[in-house]
Amino acid sequence: MEEDLKSNIVLNPIGKITTPYSTTDECPSQGRLKEAECIIDIFPEYIDALLDIDKCSHLIVLYWFHLSDRTRLQGKKRDHDRVHGVFATRSPHRPNPIAISSVPLLKREGNRLFVKHLECVTGTYCIDLKAYSPDIDSYPEAVIGWRKK
Amino acid sequence: MEEDLKSNIVLNPIGKITTPYSTTDECPSQGRLKEAECIIDIFPEYIDALLDIDKCSHLIVLYWFHLSDRTRLQGKKRDHDRVHGVFATRSPHRPNPIAISSVPLLKREGNRLFVKHLECVTGTYCIDLKAYSPDIDSYPEAVIGWRKK
Repeated sequence: MEEDLKSNIVLNPIGKITTPYSTTDECPSQGRLKEAECIIDIFPEYIDALLDIDKCSHLIVLYWFHLSDRTRLQGKKRDHDRVHGVFATRSPHRPNPIAISSVPLLKREGNRLFVKHLECVTGTYCIDLKAYSPDIDSYPEAVIGWRKK
Repeated sequence: MEEDLKSNIVLNPIGKITTPYSTTDECPSQGRLKEAECIIDIFPEYIDALLDIDKCSHLIVLYWFHLSDRTRLQGKKRDHDRVHGVFATRSPHRPNPIAISSVPLLKREGNRLFVKHLECVTGTYCIDLKAYSPDIDSYPEAVIGWRKK
């Protein structure tokens, strides 16, 4: 049963993302600092799952960092001199390189969603969308203590 | 190349979660409303990825809802009379049933993390951990417009 479950954790992309970035070097390390428009085209077989999405002001977008190094367990930020475990960071390099971006939804046109703040190369697969709920997702007081002040 | 990538989206669990809930009926629909302690045991091969995690006040925990219906594209909330697309909700039933909970980290003991607010049955696989950063993850002003007031 354990083995069955493990072998069943396979993701099916639900859409494809268009961004202004064609290489990882061009991608922002924090998408929220960039205002560039990004587009998520949801595949036609999932369009029914979009009902009422335009009533959400913000979405959580999950996507797959296919260019990441899945063997890396520790790393440094570009501007930092110490290594940290990847689970204590937002590094794209991690055992299961699922990216999470919480973003404003600008508009929906059919199966096409316009957002900003994504930080992936164009052509990246989208794997899930969720309504952002401040009741459960917002912690303005959270602190990452290893960060430079 | 497209086909290669799709078939390569396979997740490897990084740990296992212990909660007070043994059936989905017992699980809270919003984990943040429950104060029960939950434990994440990270598998030994990933322990290096935990370096400095105890300096994070809050974590984003990703886990795999293995009991979900992956074919469901629309659904109703328990207390709501209209259906919504699953991408406009937080339903566990969705094409790629990845759960996301943003939670306070209570303490770390070796490979064991103590948190609260998870909403899965005990024995669920953890698939990723990230530092919660209010700069990028917090939107207190977000609105889900289809919700009952």
